[in-house]
Amino acid sequence: MSELSRRELIVKAGAVALGAAVVQLGCGLRHKPNTEAGAVASGAADVQLGNVGPKASAAVDPKKWPWPYEKLDPAKTAEIAYNEWYRVYCGASVISSVFSQLAEKVGEPYKSFPVDGFFFLLGGIADWGTVCGTGAGANIVANLIVGPPTSGDHAGFTIGSNLMEYYGNTMMPVFVPKNPKIDPAKIVQTQSDSPLCHISLGKWMKASGFPKASAERKERCSRLAATMAYQLVKNLNAWKDGKYDENIKWDPAEEVGINAQQNCTDCHGSSVPTAKR
Amino acid sequence: MSELSRRELIVKAGAVALGAAVVQLGCGLRHKPNTEAGAVASGAADVQLGNVGPKASAAVDPKKWPWPYEKLDPAKTAEIAYNEWYRVYCGASVISSVFSQLAEKVGEPYKSFPVDGFFFLLGGIADWGTVCGTGAGANIVANLIVGPPTSGDHAGFTIGSNLMEYYGNTMMPVFVPKNPKIDPAKIVQTQSDSPLCHISLGKWMKASGFPKASAERKERCSRLAATMAYQLVKNLNAWKDGKYDENIKWDPAEEVGINAQQNCTDCHGSSVPTAKR
Repeated sequence: MSELSRRELIVKAGAVALGAAVVQLGCGLRHKPNTEAGAVASGAADVQLGNVGPKASAAVDPKKWPWPYEKLDPAKTAEIAYNEWYRVYCGASVISSVFSQLAEKVGEPYKSFPVDGFFFLLGGIADWGTVCGTGAGANIVANLIVGPPTSGDHAGFTIGSNLMEYYGNTMMPVFVPKNPKIDPAKIVQTQSDSPLCHISLGKWMKASGFPKASAERKERCSRLAATMAYQLVKNLNAWKDGKYDENIKWDPAEEVGINAQQNCTDCHGSSVPTAKR
Repeated sequence: MSELSRRELIVKAGAVALGAAVVQLGCGLRHKPNTEAGAVASGAADVQLGNVGPKASAAVDPKKWPWPYEKLDPAKTAEIAYNEWYRVYCGASVISSVFSQLAEKVGEPYKSFPVDGFFFLLGGIADWGTVCGTGAGANIVANLIVGPPTSGDHAGFTIGSNLMEYYGNTMMPVFVPKNPKIDPAKIVQTQSDSPLCHISLGKWMKASGFPKASAERKERCSRLAATMAYQLVKNLNAWKDGKYDENIKWDPAEEVGINAQQNCTDCHGSSVPTAKR
């Protein structure tokens, strides 16, 4: 896989053609199980939490990056996401799980951020089944905290992209809350091989036998939001420590010539079109 | 098609099961051309613009809805989106086209909104080919201005959802800027039948013969962002006038039992699974 370098992203930001250094790679299935899937609730042993209490916020400009960040406890964040799902669903619950804590620890710009306005991310954006709200929400958080690539640090963009990969390559859901509403034994894990709500949910519904309206399906999606919030904060903490691996794992524009997920054959079958370069 | 009523959305917001009033409908192709596709640059004859100059913004709470809105000129908005695309790409360009004008006319919360943080929406979220950034950006704008359904007005959610339908059922791009970078005769129109970047872009690349890295492809996507910005503002202006038709046009959870786009057979072929209810 290729690396999307800082320079390339800055060039991209200037909307300049990336040139012709194109590598024609196959578009195979990449079903490797994600070894980080063991990220279950495990306390906060490796997290140093910042001081509690909001700071003066007048000086914070939300259009300048990075936003002030203090390390969070992934498990606590996941618990919040799990509970918030039942209030504002997948996308907004991931945003809320991080921003609500930073509103308390840091203050602005988190305190004023309109988290509930992202309710519409549910069901792959207003139930259209496109990107899972947990992936969209995680991308929003990572990019708003670290900043867009145009700000000079592309770690937020990379964290977001790699969380899309994690989402598709992991048996979900992983995180188990302290007080689950449904017996975890009833919630089967499935791997979506896609960041799309429709495919992810469809595979789970088929494997579990539970309909969309069931309490079990809601438990699955709320625990999925919690799992993504856990991974998101783990990555943001690493970034804060200067330890986040900046390699981007999937660069479809370079590898297959079109924005895409990784498993072309899932929809195209054996006749995957070749994108003109 | 069914109507997602205010009551249903409020019930949904409470995460209560929608009950068993389920109608089993077919999942056919809905390729009707959108008759609103003639929305080209045509001036602002039907738009009454508000006063210019920011107002005092201290009293605005971005977590309360609706946000202050003044009617905008759709064609001017589309021109801004077209140009902003070449700076921050599809999703952020749609947000910028509306919020930059409202920052001038209204002030906060638009002035402080971190538009560039949504750069990552490009290419269907970090190039993964999921939801087109123009649809995501339009949903963000509609839901942040009007508010989420939980705020009591579901017009923002409905505008967003119906713009996803408009996106897929329209020969795109529609809007022609005053000074196009590429001769419009070179930019063919295609209908995606999907809100997904990968499918939308793939169909256009196939029909046009231009690769993703070409100036023509960029022109197509920037004009698509402009088209969506035009429609978005047209709808927001109608909402401001109390004239927006609140019927939601596609309610997949009710109609097919799973979050989905409308054309099941495109991926599933003749064996479309039936979702358990």
